[in-house]
Amino acid sequence: MTYCVGMLTEHGMVLIADTRTNAGIDNISIYKKLHIVEEADDRLIVIASAGSLSVTQSMLPILAEGLPALEAESPPRTLALVPSMFRAAELVGEALTTAHRTINQVLLGSSIDSGVSLLLGGRIGSGPLKLYLIYSEGNFIECEADSPFFQIGELKYGKPMLDRTLQWDTPLDEAVKVGLISFDATMRSNLSVGRPLDLIAVPADPHKKPVHFRIEPDDRYFNQLSADWGRLMTEARNAIEDPPFMLGSSLLPENMK
Amino acid sequence: MTYCVGMLTEHGMVLIADTRTNAGIDNISIYKKLHIVEEADDRLIVIASAGSLSVTQSMLPILAEGLPALEAESPPRTLALVPSMFRAAELVGEALTTAHRTINQVLLGSSIDSGVSLLLGGRIGSGPLKLYLIYSEGNFIECEADSPFFQIGELKYGKPMLDRTLQWDTPLDEAVKVGLISFDATMRSNLSVGRPLDLIAVPADPHKKPVHFRIEPDDRYFNQLSADWGRLMTEARNAIEDPPFMLGSSLLPENMK
Repeated sequence: MTYCVGMLTEHGMVLIADTRTNAGIDNISIYKKLHIVEEADDRLIVIASAGSLSVTQSMLPILAEGLPALEAESPPRTLALVPSMFRAAELVGEALTTAHRTINQVLLGSSIDSGVSLLLGGRIGSGPLKLYLIYSEGNFIECEADSPFFQIGELKYGKPMLDRTLQWDTPLDEAVKVGLISFDATMRSNLSVGRPLDLIAVPADPHKKPVHFRIEPDDRYFNQLSADWGRLMTEARNAIEDPPFMLGSSLLPENMK
Repeated sequence: MTYCVGMLTEHGMVLIADTRTNAGIDNISIYKKLHIVEEADDRLIVIASAGSLSVTQSMLPILAEGLPALEAESPPRTLALVPSMFRAAELVGEALTTAHRTINQVLLGSSIDSGVSLLLGGRIGSGPLKLYLIYSEGNFIECEADSPFFQIGELKYGKPMLDRTLQWDTPLDEAVKVGLISFDATMRSNLSVGRPLDLIAVPADPHKKPVHFRIEPDDRYFNQLSADWGRLMTEARNAIEDPPFMLGSSLLPENMK
């Protein structure tokens, strides 16, 4: 399993992915799932993947080499050349479909799930930051302000935190915290999601520098955040008004009065 | 779908169940899933159910009529007669298996899922409060202090809150809040879990009165708890130290210095 979250607010974009892969519960490894697939003066494009590792690992070189040109004499189609994030999503969708097609032929008749879902985020030129969720079939949807996040993989444990505390106007630092708390909830309940976590945060202001960081299993900040969050949750719970219908529970039962 | 939670602490027991059943997304109804199956001077036994409504509705009358006596001249075996909560769990497991067997014969060859899981809680005589999780096959496990709760049905969205803020020494009022916040998270994400919620809280002190309450769709306390929780989450998030690795994001990129 895997958990990846992508958040897009007016202040920037954050992608976080875990690194645990497993074939059964007794065969776990560390593989990177957050890939900077294109980095140049005019563009930064990042992909996070959940699902079949073999399909993802086939797709990445197909993308790097480029999809076949549509016209003679043209160069292969790569992320270095696409004019917009929309065209980047189309190209990645096509590379995913291509990788899928090849591998599905080999898996025919087996019950192995080759499904993959991707988060694609980034910026091209002076355009705005964009975030897409690309499905196994290569089609995709774009992140919008009403629901400023996407999740792939083991998403349920970490969703309430995103639902409750991430809005379009959430500052970038705060979005990073939301993402990490969401991971903390997930890793507590699903052993197949684990540290290290890879994180990339891209400020909406193109003059500010993106941050790329790996949170190791012994990361002091994450451990502190996890401990603080537990304490803060309990304090918040205590701050809620007591249920009025519970007043009766301190009374003696009718037949003992 | 369904969500039910059972919590057992040193201060008492709380069971909460939603009331929404659905066959597809366009056919929803309200059915009680929290049943007081035995209430007498010496005992209180409660069942919450998730899964096939037809199996649950077959099991309840089987339990009420009593399972066949094991010896001639003996009365049918009912929850009114069992000497302990352990024997109550055995009896309910047997009633579930009986209901299952009959219905599975009719469903043979269909793809309809007749799985049911149950929470069984209560007290007999002067014994301690006990909480069991009964599986579809009729076997069961008992709730212990290290993990003082059980969930059945749509459990993932509501688990982080329980993981973080419910301990063996949590007061009964606070356990009720934890349960309601856990339901709030679940109902926000899964349309097949919905109000009214049925709640029963039984103080560990047998001289204190149990509370049985229905939280209607317009319940003022629940609406306030939900609104307060959102605000408190955001305040808690703000109170967490800012990620130190994010300091770099306010700098200009290397090539712009």
